[in-house]
Amino acid sequence: MNRVPMEGKVLKENDRIAAELRARFREHGVLCLNLIGSPGAGKTSLLERTLEGFGAGTRVAVLTGDIQTDNDAARLARSGFPVRQITTGGTCHLDARMVERAIADWPLPDLDLLLIENVGNLVCPAGYDLGEAAKIVVLSVAEGEDKPLKYPTIFFKAELVVLNKLDLLPYVPFNLAAARENARCVNPAVEFVEVSCVTGQGLPAWHAWLEKRQAQAAEALAAARG
Amino acid sequence: MNRVPMEGKVLKENDRIAAELRARFREHGVLCLNLIGSPGAGKTSLLERTLEGFGAGTRVAVLTGDIQTDNDAARLARSGFPVRQITTGGTCHLDARMVERAIADWPLPDLDLLLIENVGNLVCPAGYDLGEAAKIVVLSVAEGEDKPLKYPTIFFKAELVVLNKLDLLPYVPFNLAAARENARCVNPAVEFVEVSCVTGQGLPAWHAWLEKRQAQAAEALAAARG
Repeated sequence: MNRVPMEGKVLKENDRIAAELRARFREHGVLCLNLIGSPGAGKTSLLERTLEGFGAGTRVAVLTGDIQTDNDAARLARSGFPVRQITTGGTCHLDARMVERAIADWPLPDLDLLLIENVGNLVCPAGYDLGEAAKIVVLSVAEGEDKPLKYPTIFFKAELVVLNKLDLLPYVPFNLAAARENARCVNPAVEFVEVSCVTGQGLPAWHAWLEKRQAQAAEALAAARG
Repeated sequence: MNRVPMEGKVLKENDRIAAELRARFREHGVLCLNLIGSPGAGKTSLLERTLEGFGAGTRVAVLTGDIQTDNDAARLARSGFPVRQITTGGTCHLDARMVERAIADWPLPDLDLLLIENVGNLVCPAGYDLGEAAKIVVLSVAEGEDKPLKYPTIFFKAELVVLNKLDLLPYVPFNLAAARENARCVNPAVEFVEVSCVTGQGLPAWHAWLEKRQAQAAEALAAARG
């Protein structure tokens, strides 16, 4: 995040819109997840494989953020599910206003799950609440196991770390146990799934996590409604 | 970059300090290079191999930026050359003031080359001039060849793209020709070197580029002095 005097004001306004979005998502029983990772961590590939694993009737939609190009939306739209690109035009993160605009004409009662792919950046997106129920870090094993210590904010705020590109493990100096330890160092409660979007390894565990999280959200909603 | 109203003022102040730094570097014949890349692009490994390739008498120093930890400085200090960590404590990029402070007690007349490793981030560092002679993008082949189109600002501003982790090419869907084409699309004059810090492939070309660039800077300095 830039340490700019106006930042507090901007973040306050973002928090206000995010709180409204969160209330709307809860009201309609939509689980919103905010996927954050470096450029090339494999966020889009993970979403491609995720959508492939869903049945045709799944009530899921995707927002995908990039500074330029709508390549990712084009890739994901092949799934047949609703996908919309947010092109930030230079801004290094998504903010709540961008999400609010992007979903303005989507009927939330028709959705159970909204997956947001943030701009490729392990730093700035951590500071902007999008009204999500949970943040998820996607970390490629090609990036190195030291990243949770170097970029602690996002690992601290995340509920889940998806360790991606497991297929590259034989070729890179990445210690899975050390990566988990480093992430737990900044966030003892963080969960992990380990996947390869190439071989499909671990994708069932990732889908199981999504189902568990949706069930939790549904329970919380039912409890709130008494 | 954040689109914050105060940003213009902050950038103007940054540009002022960067211009002072640039003048000092030129006065003392120091070639300053600003290495920018995603988390895990391999910037520190490239610097490790670069320093290993220098003779003991080489007048080189390194500044390495991270949000947290001084791991990188510890790694690079093994080279025996002067290395200093800049820990930004949350800020997503280095700025000129951080560089000014970090080199305050380094005698510039004793240096020919100052290598700056920016915070791992393909977006925000592109907006902050550090007084460098050139920006260099380090892009790992594990990140995908679409990155120049998705993060055009830094590729537009860079003089050189170091395509890193060539040893992973057999295991990732990365098209070198397409990556070069995409980078030239946003910056027709950009140069390339392709390296593996694991096998050493391409490192002589990278060292040759550094020597060429130092010779150019020395010629420009001599011409300016008449």
